[in-house]
Amino acid sequence: MDVNISSVIELLGVIVFAISGAFSAMQKRFDAFGITIIGFVTALGGGTTRDILLNIPVFWMKLPHYPIIVFVSCFLTLFIKNYIKNLKITFIVFDAIGLGLYTMLGIQKGLANHLDPSSCIILGIITGAFGGVLRDVLLNDVPHIFRKEIYATACVIGGVFYFGFKHVVPVDVARIVTICLICSIRLVAVKFNWSIPRFYS
Amino acid sequence: MDVNISSVIELLGVIVFAISGAFSAMQKRFDAFGITIIGFVTALGGGTTRDILLNIPVFWMKLPHYPIIVFVSCFLTLFIKNYIKNLKITFIVFDAIGLGLYTMLGIQKGLANHLDPSSCIILGIITGAFGGVLRDVLLNDVPHIFRKEIYATACVIGGVFYFGFKHVVPVDVARIVTICLICSIRLVAVKFNWSIPRFYS
Amino acid sequence: MDVNISSVIELLGVIVFAISGAFSAMQKRFDAFGITIIGFVTALGGGTTRDILLNIPVFWMKLPHYPIIVFVSCFLTLFIKNYIKNLKITFIVFDAIGLGLYTMLGIQKGLANHLDPSSCIILGIITGAFGGVLRDVLLNDVPHIFRKEIYATACVIGGVFYFGFKHVVPVDVARIVTICLICSIRLVAVKFNWSIPRFYS
Repeated sequence: MDVNISSVIELLGVIVFAISGAFSAMQKRFDAFGITIIGFVTALGGGTTRDILLNIPVFWMKLPHYPIIVFVSCFLTLFIKNYIKNLKITFIVFDAIGLGLYTMLGIQKGLANHLDPSSCIILGIITGAFGGVLRDVLLNDVPHIFRKEIYATACVIGGVFYFGFKHVVPVDVARIVTICLICSIRLVAVKFNWSIPRFYS
Repeated sequence: MDVNISSVIELLGVIVFAISGAFSAMQKRFDAFGITIIGFVTALGGGTTRDILLNIPVFWMKLPHYPIIVFVSCFLTLFIKNYIKNLKITFIVFDAIGLGLYTMLGIQKGLANHLDPSSCIILGIITGAFGGVLRDVLLNDVPHIFRKEIYATACVIGGVFYFGFKHVVPVDVARIVTICLICSIRLVAVKFNWSIPRFYS
Repeated sequence: MDVNISSVIELLGVIVFAISGAFSAMQKRFDAFGITIIGFVTALGGGTTRDILLNIPVFWMKLPHYPIIVFVSCFLTLFIKNYIKNLKITFIVFDAIGLGLYTMLGIQKGLANHLDPSSCIILGIITGAFGGVLRDVLLNDVPHIFRKEIYATACVIGGVFYFGFKHVVPVDVARIVTICLICSIRLVAVKFNWSIPRFYS
C-alpha cells in the first residue's frame, strides 16, 4: 500500500471519528468549543497515543491540515445534525467505519517500525479504540468498550485475520478485506447485541 | 524574549497553577498527599503533555527545582487558605493568570520547534488548559472547560491576536499584551457569565 | 543489580499488578475483554508513563512477552478467583507487593538516565502508583490513592530511605530492604487504617 492510499485511509478515519466524537458531545449538550475538543480527541487521540508509544513525532503536529479537517468536520456536524433523524444509528455506523480504518493504520505503523504481530495488533487496537476511550474519560463515562457489545474484540479478530491472510492474497486486498471485516463484526455485534461472556457465577 | 524572561513566565505559571490545583483539591477535601498530586498535575500536566506531543524531553525532568516549587506552593497553600475568605474568587484569578502565562509559553515552544501558527495555538491551548483537564479527570469531574464560561476560547483568541500583532509591535510587547488579553477575556467571561452558544434547537 | 535481577523484578511486578487490575475489573463485573484491558493498563501503565516522560522507547513495545504475560495472568485470574475466598485481601496484598517492586524499578530507571534523587523518586511513584490511577480513571472512580490509606506516601518514604541507605549497605541489600519497606508500610497502613491528616478546620 503506497503512501497515498495510506493517507486517504487516515484522512477518512479522521473525518469519520471527528463526526462520531462531535455527535457524542452533542448528545451531552456540550457547547461548540467542547464539541470541537471532543471531536479532536476522538479523531486524533488514538493515533497520537500510538505515536507517543512508538516514540515517534505525533503525526498531525507537522501536518496542520489534520486539525483543520477535524475543525471543519465538527463544524459541519453542527449543521447536518438537523437533517439526520436518528443520531444513534449514524453514530454507530461512522464509528464502525473509523474503527476498521484506524485499526489497519495502527497495524501498518507497527509493521513500519519492525514490531512483532502481537505489538502491531495492540497498536491497531490503540489507534482504533483509544480515541473513543479518551472521549469517554473526558465525558466522565465508563469507556463504552468495557460495557457494550463487542468492540475492540473486532480489532483483535481483524488483526489476527490480517496476519494470516496477507500471505495468501495481495496485501492491498488483505487490507481492504480486514477493514471490511472489522467494520462488519462491529455492526453485526450491535445489530444482534453480541457481547463477551462475563465469567461470573 | 530571552531565556530568562521565558523562565520567569514558566516559573510564575507553575506557582499560580499549583496553588489553583491545590485549592481545587482542598474543596474536594483530599488529604495532604492528594492536594500535592493535584497541584503537581495542574501545574506541570499541560507542559508535560506539550513536551510529549513535541517528542522532546519533559521540561521538569532534568530541572528538579520545578517539582520542588510545586511542593512548596502546595504546602504554603495549606497554610494561607485560612487567611483567604473566598476560595472561589482566588481560584479563578490565579487560574486566569496561569492560563495567559502558559498559553504564551506553549506558543513559544511551538515556534521554537518550527511549527505552523495553527499547531502553535493548539500547543498553547494544551499548555494552558490541559493541566486543568487532567485535574478534573483525576477529581472525577467533567472537565470545567466543557461546561463553564469561555475558557480555552480565550487561548484561541489570544493566539490568533498574537500571530497578527507580533509583526506590528516589538515581540515582547506582543507577548505581554497577549498574556493580559487572555487573562482579561477569562476574567470578564466569568464576571458576566459569558459562554459559547450551544447550537441546539 | 544486574539486568537479570532487574528483569525478574519487572516480571513479578507485571504479573502481580495484572492480577490486581483483573480483580478490580471483576469487582465492577466487566466482561473478559474489559478485564484484560484493565489488567494491561494496571500492569504496564505506570512503566509506560515513566518511559514516555523519560522520552525513551516504551519497555514492552519491543518485548512482546510482556503483553503476553499480562494476558495469561488475566486469563488465569478468571479461573483462580473461585478458589479465593476474600478477593479484597488478595487484591491488597498483590497490590502492595507490586507497589514496592515497581517503585524500586522506577528509581533505578531514573538513576540510569542520570536524574536527581527527587526526579527519581517521582518516577518511582509514577511507576508504582500511576497504573492504579489509570485503572481508576478508566473504571470512572476517583483514584484510590487520593482517598484511601497511605499509598504513594509509602513510595516517598521508601525512595528517601533508599537514597540514604544505599551508601551504607551493599546496593542489592538496600534495594530488597526498600521493596520490603514500601510493601510493609502499605500493608500496615491498610491493617491499622492509617491515613494522612487532611488539614481542615
